[in-house]
Amino acid sequence: MTIKKDLVIVGAGPSALAAAVYTTREEISTVMCEKGVVGGLAAITDWIDNYPGFAKGIKGMDLASQMQDQAERFGAEIQYAEVAEISDGDDFKIVKTTDGELHAKAVLIATGSAYRQLNVPGEKEFYGRGVHFCATCDGAFYRDKKIAVVGGGNSAVQEALFLLKFASHIDLLVRSEVKASEVLQRELDEKVKQGKITVHLGVTPTGISGDNGKFSKVLAKQNGKDVEFTVDGVFVFIGLIPNTAFLNGSGIKLDESGFIKTDANLQTNLSGIFASGDVRSGATMQIASAVGEGATAALKIREYLEKQKHHLITLPTESV
Amino acid sequence: MTIKKDLVIVGAGPSALAAAVYTTREEISTVMCEKGVVGGLAAITDWIDNYPGFAKGIKGMDLASQMQDQAERFGAEIQYAEVAEISDGDDFKIVKTTDGELHAKAVLIATGSAYRQLNVPGEKEFYGRGVHFCATCDGAFYRDKKIAVVGGGNSAVQEALFLLKFASHIDLLVRSEVKASEVLQRELDEKVKQGKITVHLGVTPTGISGDNGKFSKVLAKQNGKDVEFTVDGVFVFIGLIPNTAFLNGSGIKLDESGFIKTDANLQTNLSGIFASGDVRSGATMQIASAVGEGATAALKIREYLEKQKHHLITLPTESV
Repeated sequence: MTIKKDLVIVGAGPSALAAAVYTTREEISTVMCEKGVVGGLAAITDWIDNYPGFAKGIKGMDLASQMQDQAERFGAEIQYAEVAEISDGDDFKIVKTTDGELHAKAVLIATGSAYRQLNVPGEKEFYGRGVHFCATCDGAFYRDKKIAVVGGGNSAVQEALFLLKFASHIDLLVRSEVKASEVLQRELDEKVKQGKITVHLGVTPTGISGDNGKFSKVLAKQNGKDVEFTVDGVFVFIGLIPNTAFLNGSGIKLDESGFIKTDANLQTNLSGIFASGDVRSGATMQIASAVGEGATAALKIREYLEKQKHHLITLPTESV
Repeated sequence: MTIKKDLVIVGAGPSALAAAVYTTREEISTVMCEKGVVGGLAAITDWIDNYPGFAKGIKGMDLASQMQDQAERFGAEIQYAEVAEISDGDDFKIVKTTDGELHAKAVLIATGSAYRQLNVPGEKEFYGRGVHFCATCDGAFYRDKKIAVVGGGNSAVQEALFLLKFASHIDLLVRSEVKASEVLQRELDEKVKQGKITVHLGVTPTGISGDNGKFSKVLAKQNGKDVEFTVDGVFVFIGLIPNTAFLNGSGIKLDESGFIKTDANLQTNLSGIFASGDVRSGATMQIASAVGEGATAALKIREYLEKQKHHLITLPTESV
């Protein structure tokens, strides 16, 4: 079965949903392909404090379902399937999924990226409720609390230093040794001297443990011995993985970390294929930014579709 | 009286408020300078259908006050003053306002832009309730309705063609003659033949008239004679004016239409001075995009302030 649409969006997270609100409201027929959860990382985030428009914050699940309802109200469709391949047809793009082929005039890739996880027992259970991957998102919940930070690279050290704006003490859990730039290392040393950060080398987390369903500690091995860190929460900074594996062989240009490169119109190097949100090179991992890019991408896609219709390359811009 | 802050934001519209939510939540002391209404154009928009997160839409005033409450909850301050000048001090920026001087480590310009208006009686009264300036925002409210479009340039013709997705008929009111690109002119001619668009040349709108407080018609002069167009609403596309007049002499680079040029970090050509939202070159005039850029700008400003503290130019990026 081949479905034909103006636009196929790969993913159904905040950036995809925002784009779909815009395109469907403007009668650009749109289907989103989602292999996992509608709402992306937002949907599995306990509480979102900083998405503008909700004075007191909102549950991640509620924000995701509001966005889904809004997109569906205008006619957006969601197909629960995994995209295996994107290629060029004659006058259209071919999107191969686990549930058949889609033909579209344009494609938006909004598959997001994932925080590299510890893959230890308890990590999923306490995601967003003790186990965190974003200091900007969740740091403010740990004012005057004790936390652990996992990681020893630049981002782990930088985020640990940032988290001291809130946390009273940080245990920095480093698998081998700290590999941060000289200036970060210097500032880290200073915080260690002040007793604000304690660095634990040779630590490999083995589990997250709770107490009556509430996060209580990080379990780990240190040089072969069992150790534990009783803290109020743990932040994990061991890397980001963009969801771009399915683009292998597509010809779409990625940056050295695997994120999609785009121009100022959020278009990839392939005409008619756009990218927005956390899968894009330069992404901030913030819902507001992903949503904003989704809206912008929708307008750029509208322009693209109109130009295709007119067989026109660029419209002269009007100065005012 | 001189107030010292980490960040001064010029403006208090959606982009400014989004940035302030982020910066204040991360303990970057922030004051917004606003000469008019908090919430910008959003605050005076009757109904906002496409800001992601509100399934059924939200009143513009309510969205603006939610954003304001959210920013103030984290400690953002608003100073009701007009900014006259931005200049460089020794280690800080000087923002001169009608209510004294502010010193800041960084400045975000988020003053937005304004739709060029007709400046006729009734226009303000029916703003957002019959008189519109954005087809993407409000076109969908006019499904199967008759509307008028004012303007004869590329954007007016392009938006009129777009509005035919919704409207059953359009009266195109043109002051002198249509000045659109050849391809737009050709498509316009086709719609005229189909009876979808009627072009009225030599028309100068003189007023918007209502009936029991409800929009009813556009009054105009055509070749010296009084005429009127009884429609369900009117869209005005006669240009955009970025709010950048106060930047004369600041050294901040603008594009040919007066919008602020920025790099990929939303920084202007002057270090430590950033711009986001509808005042930025390439702006979409969409709340979601402005909000997203505000959040992104806040993260870039955080990075900038940290680099200043470390006297560091760039942090090595980590590949994952």
